[in-house]
Amino acid sequence: MTLNPAIILVQPQLGENIGKTARAMLNFGLTDLRMVSPRDGWPNPSAGPAASGADTVLDQAKVYATVAEAVADCHRVFAATVRDRDMPKPVATPQAAAQIVAEHDASDMNCGFLFGREASGLSNEDVSHADIVLTVPVNPSFGSLNLAQAVILIAYELFNITSTAEPVVPAVREGSASKGESEGLHQHLVDELISRGYFRSEGREATQQRTLRNLILNAGFSSQEVQTLRGVIKSLSRPKC
Amino acid sequence: MTLNPAIILVQPQLGENIGKTARAMLNFGLTDLRMVSPRDGWPNPSAGPAASGADTVLDQAKVYATVAEAVADCHRVFAATVRDRDMPKPVATPQAAAQIVAEHDASDMNCGFLFGREASGLSNEDVSHADIVLTVPVNPSFGSLNLAQAVILIAYELFNITSTAEPVVPAVREGSASKGESEGLHQHLVDELISRGYFRSEGREATQQRTLRNLILNAGFSSQEVQTLRGVIKSLSRPKC
Repeated sequence: MTLNPAIILVQPQLGENIGKTARAMLNFGLTDLRMVSPRDGWPNPSAGPAASGADTVLDQAKVYATVAEAVADCHRVFAATVRDRDMPKPVATPQAAAQIVAEHDASDMNCGFLFGREASGLSNEDVSHADIVLTVPVNPSFGSLNLAQAVILIAYELFNITSTAEPVVPAVREGSASKGESEGLHQHLVDELISRGYFRSEGREATQQRTLRNLILNAGFSSQEVQTLRGVIKSLSRPKC
Repeated sequence: MTLNPAIILVQPQLGENIGKTARAMLNFGLTDLRMVSPRDGWPNPSAGPAASGADTVLDQAKVYATVAEAVADCHRVFAATVRDRDMPKPVATPQAAAQIVAEHDASDMNCGFLFGREASGLSNEDVSHADIVLTVPVNPSFGSLNLAQAVILIAYELFNITSTAEPVVPAVREGSASKGESEGLHQHLVDELISRGYFRSEGREATQQRTLRNLILNAGFSSQEVQTLRGVIKSLSRPKC
């Protein structure tokens, strides 16, 4: 399953932001870019360079005169806005929105996401075309997402919901050593080895030391184990009795 | 609970990207920005304007000479990289990483995230300081996340995991009308009302029409119901027999 709802930019102002939006979209497999009356017309020469290779999205982009026309084939429309509105619409997070899109996709129904002008966002008139308000939960004292960032968060959630990759979650080990402790062990070991000419092969020293660091980190030693091992190294470094 | 792991930029190149990273962080409440040998020194005059108000993050940012020093107080370190590595490290998605950070936070252990240079990413030497590789699942044929975008995705997941906001998920209604059908009903109704002088109050016409559109959308009519209602309007518009 791949989800590919329409990303609809209402009167976007800068070509650069249109390009960045295309790049954000294609990272997560979205290709249906639509624009309602882009301020500087279309095509826009600033969009291509900002798309960093996502030209296929720009080439397929469609331009409409009104929001109504841009969403005509959609069955469920989301309006991305952080502002409180005097409108009785349900509110969804990006995660919930992705779930809704997936459910509509399963019933062969299209969805669309409206994103507003860079400076002023969506108007009440724009929002009146939507069923659901999409709001990204952000820091209440600093909410400042730009257009491409808002798009990438919904695109990411849409991709996530269809992704089967099972994340590896290593468990927390109680009392595990800090990086400073592990690095101290590593450095202690390396110093002792250097003074004994362990790193003989010219030019391979850095790789050999890195192998030792990985070996120590991957072992996941506790602080106590690191202390033990440093005692061991110290002991090994002394002359035999 | 708020999670605030260290975001560590290894030899970042452009001040603008450092500023954008700070902005991405603060949107989701992250404030612990660290840099390892920023290319153009620190402070960097290009960072502030790009931070769009997230100056508090830049003001508190710490600079280190080496990755080892930057992660010394961390108990679990993630290395953000998309490349396959010849290193035996577990791999986590942003979501899994957020879970791991939350678990460490509950045990009062710090975590850190290493992000590489804009042009070349993290070196094998950098990655050797990490326990876990952080990889964002992306479109296999177009993976092109910039620095601030990679940071914002992990920051978003960290904020999500602590957020208690329950998303509203309206159920799919089978046979629900498309936006084109709903708008057709709305326009039909408005046209008939205009020809009867319904919209009398000067300057309130747009608001009144928007109220009607919201009323129609929020009702969630099926295609069949829209047809029925259009028949009703047509009938009402005829003279009485």
